[in-house]
Order: sequence, then structure tokens, then C-alpha cells
Amino acid sequence: MNDLKLRILFKVKADLEEIETALAQNLNPYLDLVSETAQHILFSGGKRLRPLLMVLSARLCGYNGNQDKFYSTIFEYLHAATLLHDDLVDGASIRRGKPVAHSIFGNSTAVLVGDFLLARGLSIAAKTKNIKVIEIIAGITENMSQGEIHQLLKKERFDLTQNEYMEIIRRKTAVLIQGACHVGALLANAPFEHENALSEYGYNVGIAFQMADDLLDYTADTTVLGKAVGADLREGKLTLPAIHAIENAPAESRQKIKQIIHNKDFSPEEFQILLEMLKHYGGIDYTRKQATEFIEKAKNAIRIFEPTQTRETLMDIADYALKRKT
Amino acid sequence: MNDLKLRILFKVKADLEEIETALAQNLNPYLDLVSETAQHILFSGGKRLRPLLMVLSARLCGYNGNQDKFYSTIFEYLHAATLLHDDLVDGASIRRGKPVAHSIFGNSTAVLVGDFLLARGLSIAAKTKNIKVIEIIAGITENMSQGEIHQLLKKERFDLTQNEYMEIIRRKTAVLIQGACHVGALLANAPFEHENALSEYGYNVGIAFQMADDLLDYTADTTVLGKAVGADLREGKLTLPAIHAIENAPAESRQKIKQIIHNKDFSPEEFQILLEMLKHYGGIDYTRKQATEFIEKAKNAIRIFEPTQTRETLMDIADYALKRKT
Repeated sequence: MNDLKLRILFKVKADLEEIETALAQNLNPYLDLVSETAQHILFSGGKRLRPLLMVLSARLCGYNGNQDKFYSTIFEYLHAATLLHDDLVDGASIRRGKPVAHSIFGNSTAVLVGDFLLARGLSIAAKTKNIKVIEIIAGITENMSQGEIHQLLKKERFDLTQNEYMEIIRRKTAVLIQGACHVGALLANAPFEHENALSEYGYNVGIAFQMADDLLDYTADTTVLGKAVGADLREGKLTLPAIHAIENAPAESRQKIKQIIHNKDFSPEEFQILLEMLKHYGGIDYTRKQATEFIEKAKNAIRIFEPTQTRETLMDIADYALKRKT
Repeated sequence: MNDLKLRILFKVKADLEEIETALAQNLNPYLDLVSETAQHILFSGGKRLRPLLMVLSARLCGYNGNQDKFYSTIFEYLHAATLLHDDLVDGASIRRGKPVAHSIFGNSTAVLVGDFLLARGLSIAAKTKNIKVIEIIAGITENMSQGEIHQLLKKERFDLTQNEYMEIIRRKTAVLIQGACHVGALLANAPFEHENALSEYGYNVGIAFQMADDLLDYTADTTVLGKAVGADLREGKLTLPAIHAIENAPAESRQKIKQIIHNKDFSPEEFQILLEMLKHYGGIDYTRKQATEFIEKAKNAIRIFEPTQTRETLMDIADYALKRKT
């Protein structure tokens, strides 16, 4: 574990423990199968990034109630719901080193428990009795489903542009993280500029987080990542490292890249060749540079707050979005 | 078309037209595939029972705004979302005489467009800015997913009791119809007893409607129904006519019933034998009698309102729940 991760974990340990408890307590299904399936996806080593960001955002805005952990579960339930559906849609087999839920419990259960988790998140959002919070949560779910459909439509399409890639990751990843930070500010009745600052922080962290995810799919250590590298490509998903390299490679190399990607059963050797080409044509560096810029924007957005320990932790989390190994 | 249906249609024709327009106008997706898939399920001859009940309930309570059709789309979007997911879960092939959405657009699209429709319903609910409305909508989605999972768990289980059957149809069907009526009253700022009366009306109509649906699966004319009779049994779903007959048949006949049901490839002749046995052991009559009782309860619940044309229409719709042919 690197120093940054250790530093963050040290500072948020108590929060994470309370979030774990809240996640287990507020599921409330009446059927055991729902518990089992939801627990499989919820308690399999997730980072709790989204609930944690909500809790820290609320704290940064001076929240002094005791419902923050309860409300923070919204964001993990929504996240888990989309993981259940997305793994099914993507035909994924492994997540966090474990078989995906639909391979254990069946496709039907994965669909319906995803629906349940989505509904649970919305029920908890309704309990805030804050219309703006509820509107944000409903908007997030609309965006996420459409982002995922957009991604699905662009499977195996080499004409996916960087603009479209940005639109997809905004909807499928950034709006949820943005929403978590925004809702934190709303729960604390923060003034408008603080609300905006945290929304902007969340959006930028979200984009950087997804870009880093897409980088990890090329560069991570498989045993650390908990799934095989190149999984996105095998699912037909083109992400920024490849989009940029394809745009910048000369015709012949571009052809070679497309050829390897097109053959989803590429060998480890072919994957290495591809990775070298993506590096050579700047795809890896460009993606890292882009992610770094979004992280800087995120950090700048919250500089309007007093330099407290909470602000420091949010700065660290922004950095961690790119520096993480999983 | 029978007289009752004609009478209802005559009275609600203008409402239904406005509901159709609202359904088309408020979908608002940014991807064509979402429109196409949603339209396939939304505009394929649905009865619009749920939005219509919301509109009529609001009117019965004196609603005089112009947002009723807009808000009524919530209930059709939620309904369509569950149809997309349920058809997938049930492995259905035909709905309303047309191939099911997942067979045309693929399973992944059906899952994600279902999520989108659910989210759209919730976004529109948020626009009411009425917390109680939002809580009801969120609660409905929790109940529907759990009802469907419960049904899935009980597939091909001959030990399904009448109590469990009631619990399943309450969650998967009645709460949505109940919610539509209840929300209609809330939008009209109805006094508490009117709100309760319409909630009770909706619950009872919902239960009767599902029982009638389960009867139609045995007794309907295939060309009128738009799908083959016996479809529930082929999907392994035991409903009240069979549950009651199994409970009341002597051991030998019970064995015969189970044997036919167990073999999902039963021939039309076997299905006829089964149907005769369900009739003989009272399953059909009992279900019809039960549905009739729920309809009476529904009608009684709204007798506290003045005898207006709107009340009359709601009475007719309650009767129609059982008298319909599709």
C-alpha cells in the first residue's frame, strides 16, 4: 500500500467503519436471496469512495447532524446496482477477484436485485425530504443508464471520438461522484458557492477516477487489480488510451492496433505489443496527463474552503484517484 | 368489445389521448436506441390503466391543475420498466401479440432501458416536489423488485401457499395501482379520508386485476390475449387457480395436476385436461369469487365520494378488471 492510501485510510478509518455498518443496516430486504446477492456485491472490498466523499463534503460544509452515514449509503447502493447490471451487460466474469454476481445467482436475480438496490437508494434519498437531493439522485440514475447504453452502442466501434468518450464517462461515472459531493453540501445547507465548489470537485474527481480506471485496465498488476488486464478491450470497450493512440498513429500502426483490438481473444504477447504501441503513440501518457488536469481542477475547486484536515483529505483523495493501484 | 369497455372508453377518450401525448413527450432520452426500445414497450397497445387511474383519482378529489397527465406518465414508465425486466426474467417471448423487447433489442438494452424508464419515472415524481408522492414512488419500486424476486424464487414450487401468492401479487402488481390512485389524491390535496379511500380502492383493484390476469392465462382466447394461454405455467408460475385446486384435489388428482404442470411442454390436450381439473376442483370459480370480492371492496371504498361521473367511471373500471377479455 502506498503512503497516500495509508494517510487517507488513517484519517477516514472511523468514517469507513460507520459507513460499513450503515450499509449493512439499511438494506432491509424481506427476502434472504436479496440480502445474499446484495451482500455479494456490497461487501466484496469496495473502496466506499462515493459514500466517503458525501460524508467528507458534508463535513467540509459544517454538517453537524448524525444522519450523514445513513444518507451516504444512497451512493453505494446506486453504485452497486449499476455494477450488478453493468457486469451483466458487459458479460464480465470477475470483479474484485471474485466471480460476478450473475454467474453465482443467475442473470434474473442480478437484474432484480439491481432494481432493488436502485429503489433502496431512492427511498433513502426520499427520507432527506430535500427536493434538490431527490432531483439529483433521480437525475443520476437517468444519466447512468444512458451512459451505459451509449457505451454499449459504441462497442467495437473504432470511430468512438474523445468527445463521445467524455460524454460516456461523465454520465456513467462522474455524475454519481459529483452527486455524492453535491448532496453532502446540500445536507449541510451550504451556501450556493460551496455547493457549486463541491459539485465541481466531484465532477472532476469522477472524470479523473474513470480515466485512471481505464489506464489501470492496461497497466495494472492483475493480482492487485482483482481481474485480468485488457478486460475492457475483451468486452469491446475502447477507452481514452486507445482512442488517442488510434487518432495519432500513422495508418499502418493504426491498422495493427485495430487488428489486435478487433480480435478479442488476443494473446498476452499481442496485448504487450498493443500496450507498447499505445505507449509509443502517446495514449497512456495523454490519458495520465488528462486525468492529472482534472485532478488539479478538482483540487482548485475546493481551495475556497478553509484549509482544514477535511479539505486536506479531499485533496488527498483527488490525488489518489490517479495514484491508486486498484 | 363488450358494453362496459365501450362505456369506459367513451368517457375517458379525451384523457387517454392526452396521456398518449404526455407519454411520448416526456421520455426525453438523448439516444435513439433508448427511444426505440422504450417506444416498443410503451406504444404497443397498453391499456394505460395506471395513468388513467391517477388522472381519475385526482379528478375525483377535485384536482384543477393542468399537470395531471404529465405526472400520470410516472406510472406507465414504471410499469413499462418492470415489463422490460420481467419479460427478461421470465424468459417470455410474446407480449401483446408482438415479440418482447429483449428478443429484438437484446438483453442488455432491455435491462438498461428498463433502468432508464424507472429513473425517468422517479425524475418526474421529483418534479411534484411532494415528498409523500416521492416516498410512495420509491416504495413502489422496492416492492415491485422484491415481489418479482419472490415470484422467481417460487418458480416450479408446488408448496406456494395462497398467502404467499397474495404477498407476491400485492408487491408486484397492487402497490403500483394503489400508488397511482393514492398519488392522484395527493396531487389534489385531498383530505386524509379521501386519500385513504383512493389508496384502498387502488389496492383492491390491483389485486383483482392480477387475479383476473391469472385467470385469463387459463381461460382467454389466445388471439384476443395476444399471447398463448398457459404461458404462466410454461414459465413455472403457479397462480391462484392452480394453488386452490391443488389444495382441494384428492391425492391422486393432485398428483395428476402437478405432473402436467411439471412438464412444461404440455400439449394443448394436456392443458385442456388440466383446465378441466382446475375447474372441477374449484380453482377457477374460487379465483373469480375472490377477485369479485376485491372489486366490491374497491367500489365500497369510494362510496364516500359524491356520485359523480368520475366516481361512476372508477366503479366501471373496477368491474372491468375482472370482465375484460385481455
